[in-house]
Amino acid sequence: MTTPPPAPLSVAWQGGLAGPLRLIDQTRLPEALEFIDCRSPEQVWVAIERLKVRGAPAIGIAAAWGVLLEFAGEAPATGDELMERVVKSCEYLASSRPTAVNLAWALARMRRAALSARDATFFDGVAALQRLHDEARAIHDEDRAMCRAIGLHGSALLSDCRGVLTHCNTGGLATSEYGTALSAIFTAVDQGQALHVFVDETRPLLQGARLTAWELAQRGIPATLICDSMAAQVMREGKVQAVIVGADRIAANGDTANKIGTYTVAVLAHRHGVPFYVAAPLSTIDARTATGADIPIEERHADEVTRVLGAPIAPRGTEAVNFAFDVTPHELIAGIVTEAGILRPPYAESIARALAG
Amino acid sequence: MTTPPPAPLSVAWQGGLAGPLRLIDQTRLPEALEFIDCRSPEQVWVAIERLKVRGAPAIGIAAAWGVLLEFAGEAPATGDELMERVVKSCEYLASSRPTAVNLAWALARMRRAALSARDATFFDGVAALQRLHDEARAIHDEDRAMCRAIGLHGSALLSDCRGVLTHCNTGGLATSEYGTALSAIFTAVDQGQALHVFVDETRPLLQGARLTAWELAQRGIPATLICDSMAAQVMREGKVQAVIVGADRIAANGDTANKIGTYTVAVLAHRHGVPFYVAAPLSTIDARTATGADIPIEERHADEVTRVLGAPIAPRGTEAVNFAFDVTPHELIAGIVTEAGILRPPYAESIARALAG
Repeated sequence: MTTPPPAPLSVAWQGGLAGPLRLIDQTRLPEALEFIDCRSPEQVWVAIERLKVRGAPAIGIAAAWGVLLEFAGEAPATGDELMERVVKSCEYLASSRPTAVNLAWALARMRRAALSARDATFFDGVAALQRLHDEARAIHDEDRAMCRAIGLHGSALLSDCRGVLTHCNTGGLATSEYGTALSAIFTAVDQGQALHVFVDETRPLLQGARLTAWELAQRGIPATLICDSMAAQVMREGKVQAVIVGADRIAANGDTANKIGTYTVAVLAHRHGVPFYVAAPLSTIDARTATGADIPIEERHADEVTRVLGAPIAPRGTEAVNFAFDVTPHELIAGIVTEAGILRPPYAESIARALAG
Repeated sequence: MTTPPPAPLSVAWQGGLAGPLRLIDQTRLPEALEFIDCRSPEQVWVAIERLKVRGAPAIGIAAAWGVLLEFAGEAPATGDELMERVVKSCEYLASSRPTAVNLAWALARMRRAALSARDATFFDGVAALQRLHDEARAIHDEDRAMCRAIGLHGSALLSDCRGVLTHCNTGGLATSEYGTALSAIFTAVDQGQALHVFVDETRPLLQGARLTAWELAQRGIPATLICDSMAAQVMREGKVQAVIVGADRIAANGDTANKIGTYTVAVLAHRHGVPFYVAAPLSTIDARTATGADIPIEERHADEVTRVLGAPIAPRGTEAVNFAFDVTPHELIAGIVTEAGILRPPYAESIARALAG
């Protein structure tokens, strides 16, 4: 085991009951590594709304800590005051990115924690704050443990690889520490394995070039950036022995929605005999979605295609389509790495078993 | 037959023996349509060297006219003066892009034309200039005719298509008028067909977004720009019934080297049952190259990957690989459209027949 260089954390509570909550300003990456110290729910709200913190798990964690910041370390006098302020700050923080599922889920946990503190036999303001702190800490730590478990299971899949290819950003920036697909890579490297990572730039928003390349550089992991159109040539030259990516939603049959371009990588991996793995927590599996055909493909604003980092790349007035996601059919997926282990085909069965377990 | 809106020509001789030669400044596209009027070989040299005119056929044509500009319409006094100045300007113009095969080929034709004028029974300076003019005109017109023939053959392949997908830029900007793969599309539209074109942006240098989108807009042809990673989703939604691309070199067995990303499109087309066509003049076929394995994959500067239009997209120091081309294996190609007709598998036989004929 070698010790990796410490990588800065996307979300870090700075101790005590008053914070602050330190965030990496992801909008400044990769040009600059800058931190924001939040001391109020308002500052957390702005950080979420302006995408300074992004990635579903990271947003949920930041918002949970944001509820605690409502009190700035000063204990509420009564249970009613506690509840009033927690409910208000939860509603407020939930409005920062209304469609983020993890955000609502984390805030619901904080509300329940506040309720249990209010309903204690004797109300104790400091104990109530401690209860909120412990819940935010638990949300944070559970995510970290889940990422670590995914990493351990995933690293076993990579043990014979010299090179691995990934798409988009699935690392610590989007989560509490290790991420999902990148966690498998980080963990393999922690275990002493020499791995070279090929990073799809991931147009249109370039999360691979901006964020994954940055996370790998922070950890000193050798990496090569490529345009998305170059993955086939990398595979053809035998430079990668596995592909590992994250997931936005996994259907009950294993069909996987993820960042646009993922399906292409899976088709290319299949042609070149390279195993294609998905890494995601079990919470990503939506058992009510039978197959990928039931997953609507969100289209985002055409500007993201006709511009790169704000600069136009096409004639004014050019029409564009901007698929945010695509669906990789389950038959192209060699394994789905979860915190509970690796799911293998046939996925309808392995997924049902994992969700039941 | 409908008449398309007139599209500006990348290279246009403005008449007489003195020129000027009018070029589209392709480095200003798509922001602005600006023309350069060249009145000397020096101005043509600069335009070629600075990529203001690009595309192998267009460069050769521009250089041929550049030789005539040496005289600025003033007839040489003697055959020796003619030859001395033609040889000098040919050497000079050839140095603008030393590795361009079409450039050397066009200049060799101009030297031979000058030789035949010098060796006439009675030397006539004006007739010599006219001979140079006619040779440049012939080079220009032959390219135009070849593109038109490719377009006619290719358009027949698209007759049942509502949508077609293309990669990189293969239109009039790189040639004299209609181009190769785009010629098939332009010709189909000229014939009254309704076609919607999906345009791969073509990272790293974005020739699709910058040039193909522009050429289609100039002609009023409906088009949708996509990131290279979105082609699979376009195919999956059944929006294209054919793919047509150009070629840089075609081996004797039909394996085709073309802009990086072409191979990916071919693999995706194969998976989705969409026919994949290559359009190129017979001169693109290199009979001495047995298979694609014999074609070296040129790598260009990593800056083209780590930057977009000059702006950095990745952390400073990020390593990148920049494959300029890839090779599409012949078994993924449904047909090769040439000026002599459509070559079909087995290509070893159809190519040998076409080159013999």
